[in-house]
Formats: sequence, structure tokens, C-alpha cells
Amino acid sequence: MKSRNLTLLLDLYELTMANGFFEEAPQKRGYFDLYFRKIPDKGGLVIYAGLAQVIQYLNELHFSESDLDYLKKLEIFSPNFLEYLRTFKFECDVWSVEEGTPVFPNEPLITVRGPLVQVQLLETMLLNIVNHESLIATKARRICMVARGRSVMEFGSRRAQGADAATYGARAAVIGGCSGTANVLSAKLFGLKPLGTMAHSWIQSFSSEKEAFMAWKKIYPHNCLLLVDTYDVLHSGVLNALEVFKQLKEEGIQSNLGIRIDSGDITYLTKQARRMLDDAGFKDATITVSNALDEDVIQNVLEEGASIDSFGVGEKLITASSDPVLSGVYKLVATQENGEIIPKIKLSNTVEKTTIPGFKNLYRLYDDDGQARGDLLTLDGEKMRHNSQLFNADPNKTYQKKKLRGLQLKPLRVQVFAKGKLVYQEPETMEIQRTSQAKLATLPAACLRLKNPDIYDVYWTRQLKELRTQMIEQYSE
Amino acid sequence: MKSRNLTLLLDLYELTMANGFFEEAPQKRGYFDLYFRKIPDKGGLVIYAGLAQVIQYLNELHFSESDLDYLKKLEIFSPNFLEYLRTFKFECDVWSVEEGTPVFPNEPLITVRGPLVQVQLLETMLLNIVNHESLIATKARRICMVARGRSVMEFGSRRAQGADAATYGARAAVIGGCSGTANVLSAKLFGLKPLGTMAHSWIQSFSSEKEAFMAWKKIYPHNCLLLVDTYDVLHSGVLNALEVFKQLKEEGIQSNLGIRIDSGDITYLTKQARRMLDDAGFKDATITVSNALDEDVIQNVLEEGASIDSFGVGEKLITASSDPVLSGVYKLVATQENGEIIPKIKLSNTVEKTTIPGFKNLYRLYDDDGQARGDLLTLDGEKMRHNSQLFNADPNKTYQKKKLRGLQLKPLRVQVFAKGKLVYQEPETMEIQRTSQAKLATLPAACLRLKNPDIYDVYWTRQLKELRTQMIEQYSE
Repeated sequence: MKSRNLTLLLDLYELTMANGFFEEAPQKRGYFDLYFRKIPDKGGLVIYAGLAQVIQYLNELHFSESDLDYLKKLEIFSPNFLEYLRTFKFECDVWSVEEGTPVFPNEPLITVRGPLVQVQLLETMLLNIVNHESLIATKARRICMVARGRSVMEFGSRRAQGADAATYGARAAVIGGCSGTANVLSAKLFGLKPLGTMAHSWIQSFSSEKEAFMAWKKIYPHNCLLLVDTYDVLHSGVLNALEVFKQLKEEGIQSNLGIRIDSGDITYLTKQARRMLDDAGFKDATITVSNALDEDVIQNVLEEGASIDSFGVGEKLITASSDPVLSGVYKLVATQENGEIIPKIKLSNTVEKTTIPGFKNLYRLYDDDGQARGDLLTLDGEKMRHNSQLFNADPNKTYQKKKLRGLQLKPLRVQVFAKGKLVYQEPETMEIQRTSQAKLATLPAACLRLKNPDIYDVYWTRQLKELRTQMIEQYSE
Repeated sequence: MKSRNLTLLLDLYELTMANGFFEEAPQKRGYFDLYFRKIPDKGGLVIYAGLAQVIQYLNELHFSESDLDYLKKLEIFSPNFLEYLRTFKFECDVWSVEEGTPVFPNEPLITVRGPLVQVQLLETMLLNIVNHESLIATKARRICMVARGRSVMEFGSRRAQGADAATYGARAAVIGGCSGTANVLSAKLFGLKPLGTMAHSWIQSFSSEKEAFMAWKKIYPHNCLLLVDTYDVLHSGVLNALEVFKQLKEEGIQSNLGIRIDSGDITYLTKQARRMLDDAGFKDATITVSNALDEDVIQNVLEEGASIDSFGVGEKLITASSDPVLSGVYKLVATQENGEIIPKIKLSNTVEKTTIPGFKNLYRLYDDDGQARGDLLTLDGEKMRHNSQLFNADPNKTYQKKKLRGLQLKPLRVQVFAKGKLVYQEPETMEIQRTSQAKLATLPAACLRLKNPDIYDVYWTRQLKELRTQMIEQYSE
């Protein structure tokens, strides 16, 4: 079995900076926020995912002797720093949103506090994991939404960008709403439902389609989901499938009957196939389709009246191919020296891309009906009162203000590590899917829609707003 | 250290079929071809990559006790099949194109021969690896081509789709022409050049940009590539960098001097910065840019006269975001029973998507000047003669024929495994990059271009062409 250590999976500059912090100011502490600015596919929300893998990564952080030998050979780092890495002990505090939560631009999904030399080293992997899994969960949410209750199965491993993209992508797809995955490793690791029956090669390996189906029936009499498009769906595949189904019926064998179509005009073929199955008395036989599907194709074929029970979705889900990057960033928002927190800012050409300074908290605001009415960013330690004034953080909505009165404030984040020790218990993946659906149900419907969704309101407090304005002025001089 | 076994990273149907083959026809052997049909980004070629990881995967294939326990619990597989998996011994023959080779649609990049029960199991991971790495190598070739000799550095780990996408994506990017990567793990594993100096957080963590640069100079006097866009490139960053450069000069310290710009109008900023550096006597100081770059942006800014020495390319390379899927497939092309090879076909609505039956060989045709004049597919065992007639395999060019006379035939593939035993030695990654460049230089210039490239000619023999035509007719009845 192959061993694996991802500690060196970081950008070289994390190490050159860490070495610099170590040499220059070993006591200095920092706060980093992980957040994104733009929602993929111009959607209304992102489904946050990846925390389980972040935890695993942080728990396993260590530099092996082979890593240290390699770093030494680069002749960049001081011997003291390399010795520090040899005895590296993770001692940061980490706060995070829980997986499956719908989140919005500029919200600090993760905050890490600790020695600068440590928090800096985490940047690459924290971003890699969260950017990837949140991207796929977000895409899956879109696809499952248009499937309107039909099962959506994740089938994309062969087109995923590497083994991790397949393994953790399948997990993220389930968090986003998929009913299961073809990927057996993911199913095993995360308690997901493994799905699939046969490919074209099964049929081809026999001298005829009928022979292939009959051989299948012999081996799997209780699970006859037959792939019917190897030669001709309606003139061969469905007819041969019906022969099998009839024999099973005659033999009195209870079986999951169904067909899968992987090519051609889905709407036409499924309508015709449905009629053929119904006419032969197999109203319970299911129809699965699986050819280059995404939310647009699924919406279209359902509107055209296609008769489909479940979807197998491949490359367009597992790579989020229509917009394959969630551009999360990990930015220094404060340092801490002699106990004092000093907010930090990075300016940009646009106000939107300028960072939000300070150590912050994140809340969701609920009304009496349990509906979410916006999110709130505060500076840590701020006391919130009923008449606290909230300001919309969107630079296009600065006129919009709100009082806290009548709203309930629920923290969106939990502490995950305290001084390097894990203090959070991750739920099971299927449980995350369930709570995710529940959280989605509290959001305004207009921000759930796929085209031109409403922008969900994110507010900040007067104190945070003023801190940022003042820092922008200070550094723009 | 975390152990890792990718044997279960397969689609469930590979296992249900393998169980079926085992029960139905344990002696039957099959031939599978791995190939793609469409070049990403409407390009003229794909750079084949991933073989090293395919070899590693095949060498490590085994089902652990925990895997077998899991499979048993699914209650799908026969006890005999599970016992077969427990003692699984890889015994296939594998032929492959060598990494870095430019390849074209419908060419069998990999052929696997062996017991159906084994060859079927490999589908998911072989496709996953080759689809991913070839995609990234192909994208890197495009980006490096427009950079016209300037260094292109792979900087995308944080936006890659998981850890493998970062690790093997960096390797593939180097095969495609990148000069190095920020990813330290990839650099260590594959002997690549690790690159990078500082991020904005370094500058932010000090009370001023100048202080941050001076601290850097103290720690890394010989390597002062300073990031100059934290506050204002021209009015702060470059001015402060020049202070550092002047001090180093005065102190007589030899140093790699340079600046990096990560935001804003690249053309304007690099032109101005170049002038400021030159005017101050630092003509050797380099300018690196690194903001949302791809082949289009690089081509544009160079045409606009931007002054750039090297590019750091991130998410658009590491995800191939403009077209993030190479749709390779793995298809049964023949079975073998009692020593006889029986070609197999899968039909489709379009002639292009119909498979090419039979156990085949792949050659590149060279003229006397060493220029490639096309590729050739033959059936295994065919004798080629000078007057052998070759037919263009492109369904839009069936009129085009050619004699072999005057052309040299070189096999494009090597045997990698013989009866399960590795018989091929992989070159080092940097060596693959060099041979890749040499192979590209033999291709017609018109198929190298990025927009509207010519379609490279792929031929087949009369025997192969006729076999396919006859099988299509046979199965279309």
C-alpha cells in the first residue's frame, strides 16, 4: 500500500515566507480568512464542502525526514527553521462554517489563528480542498434542483481531474444532493450508495445483445438494469430487454427492472421506450439516462416531456465544466503582537476585491418563521443589541440598512481546532446532505434559482464598516 | 503517514461486469483501446501524459482485506469472485504511446490485453489518469507556445481540483512546456524546479511595504523577487523595490532582482515598471506577472507590448478551465477465445463515434527530412509494403489516399507490461519535456497553431478499413 504525505503540497513561497517569519518575528501571530468573491455559474449561492478533508490534512501535518532532506538541498532555508519543521506541532485555532451550509461571497468560511509561521503554511491545501469540494457540491445542487426529486447519480470518475477529484468530488456531489456514486472507493470511505450495472463492453463481449442480457439475468436475476444502446435502442435494445423482463416474470422472480440509455435523442428515445415498457406490462421498469448531462440538458429534456426516472451525471458534474474554478482566497486580516490584535488590509483597484480587515464572526439572521433574512459580519467581541444598525456590505447596496430587532442571530461557524487540538466532530456525509437541504429551505427562493438569482444580503456592523473605510483611506494616501 | 490504495477507485459496474465475466467465461480474453475523439479547445493535437502514474497504479493493484470486507457486504459478488480478488495477480499485456508525444483523435494510446475480468477493472483509473494529465499537458503546450520562449511557471495548486490535480497537474504542465512549479511536493516527486518567493501576506504582516521588503532583503539577499502590488504598483511597490535594489548594489551583493505584479492592467504596469527599473540602472531586474493568465491573455498583452520576462499561470492552466475535460474512452475492440481474435464494434448514431474494431498497431510516417506526414493504424500482424495503399481515416476525407512509398514507418507505442510484468523504463519528467518539444518540431506547423489548426492526417490500411465497414453493415441490419 502506498503511503502518502501531503505536507509538502504547498506553494514554495509559503515556505520562504514561513522561514522569513521564523527568522524575523517568531512570536508574531496572524489571522487568516478563507473566503471567495464570485459564485460559479453566476449562481445565487455556494454549498460549502471539504471541512472533513481539511481536518484530516491538519491532523496529519508533519514533515518527514525525506521532506526535510529535500528542503535542505534547496539551500533556501535556515538550519533553525528546518529544525522547527522537524518538530512541527500544529498549534493553531481554526473556526469554520459546517459542511453543506449555503454560503455567500466575502464570508470568512474558515479563520485560522496562530503563529504566522504556521498559518502561512496552510494556505495552499486549505484552498485546494475547499475550492474543489465546494465547487462540486455547488454544481451538484444546481443539477439536483432541476431533476425535481428524480435521483441524480454521480458517474464521473473517469473524467475527473485525478484520483482525488474523483474520490472527494463524489463525496461533494452527494453533499450537494446526489443519491449515490459509481465510485466504489468513495462509497466505501464515506458511506455512500454505490451504483451501476453494466457498460457496452459487457454486451459487446457476447456474440449478440440478447445473449449478453440473458447471461446477465442468469448472474443477477434480481437486478436487471440493462444498457440498451449498444446497437439500436428501440429496434434491438428495448426489445431484448423486454424478453428478459418477460422471462423473469414467467419465472416469478422479483427483480429491479430497468433500462439505461447512454446516447442519442434522450427525449424521443425515453418516450418511445416508456411506451414499449408500459405496453408490455412493465410500468415499474425504470429508465435511466446518462449522456453528457448537466442542469441545462436535464431541464430541457424534462420540459420536452422525456420520461426519465434517474440521471447518471458524469464529466460536467465532476469537473463543474461550465465554470470549473471556485476562486477562494486565504488572506491575512490581522496580526497579533503582545496580545494586541492589529487589523490588516490588502487594497485593490476595486473596492470589492479589497480585503475585509480584522478578526470577525459570521452569523445568519432568522425571522420568527425560521426564514433566513441575511448574514452578518461582526468584529470579534462586538456586543449586538436589538437596535444595532446593520449595513449591507454589497458596494452596490450601501444605502440599505437594517435593525437587528426581531431577528435571531445564529453563529454560522464552529470552532474546529483549539490550540492545535481537534474539538469538532464531523457528521456523516449523508447527514450533511440532509442538513444542507434543510438549510437551503430557509433561504429566500429567489436566491436558489439558477438563472439571474437575487443577491442574498450580507450585512456588517458599523464598527467593521468604519474600520475598513478608515484603513482604505489610510493606505491609499 | 497516510496509506492509500486506489484499487477500489473504479465504477461499480466494472466489478459487476468482472464478476459476470468470472462466472460466465473465466477464460475469455479481451482487448481494450484507450483513445479520445475530440481535442480540447478545438486545438490541433493532444500531448499524451500520465503513463508514469498508470504504471504506478498497475504495479500497486491489490484488494486489501478491508476492500474485500466492503465488497462482501454489498451482497452482489460471488464468493469465488471475491476469492479471486483476494489473490488478484495482474497478468495483462499493455502497450502505450510514450509520454509527451503529440497524439490525435481515435488513435489507440493504450491497448490492454488480458482476461476480460482483469482488463475491465482497469477502465476507470486508466481513463482518469490519462484524461487528466493529457488535458493539462495539452493546455500547457498552448500557453507556453504563445509565451514565445519566456518562462511559464505553474502556480495553480490552490485552485486545482484536489491534491492529485495539483500534484500530477504540475507534472503534466511541465511535460507540456512549463519551466517549473510552485508545488513543492511535485517538485520533489518529479525532479522539477520549485518556484516562488512571497505573497501579499508577507508585506501586510509588516507595518509598511518598505519595511517588509527590507526584512526580505535581510533574509534572502541573493533572491529579491519582490511582490509590488499590495498597495500601489507604480507609486509604492516599484519605488520601494528600487530602494532595496540600490542598497544591494551599494553593498556589492550579487542578487536575482525582480518584481512580480499580480493585479491591474498588466500591459501598462509592466511598461511603466520596466522604464522605472531601466532608468534606475536595473536592466537585469526581471518582471513576472501572474494574474488570471491563459494563452489568450498572454498573446494579447505581448501584442500590446507588455514588458514581461516570465509568467506565473494558475487556475486556467491547472484546471484547463476553457475546456476542462479530455473525453477519453476505453472500449472493447476484440475478444480472444481458443486463440482466435474476434474483432468487436460498438455502433453509434454517427460514423465518427463508432469504434474501430480489432487489435491494432499505431505508426508515425516520416519523410526523408524527418518531418511527420501522418499517422497510420494497422491491424496487428499486417505486413506493410512500399505500395501499400493508405486511406485517410477522417470520414470527411475518405477520398484521400496515399502510398507508403518514400515514407518511414516508426511505431508510436512501446510495450509497457508483458503478462503483468513491467518491461518499460519511464524517462525523467524533464527528459519527457525535451523529447516532447522535439516531436512537436516534426509536425506540420499548421497543426500546431491554436486557432483553426489543420487536421493532422491519420490513415488506416485497406484491411482495417474494410473490416470496420463490414462490421458496421453486419450489426446495422
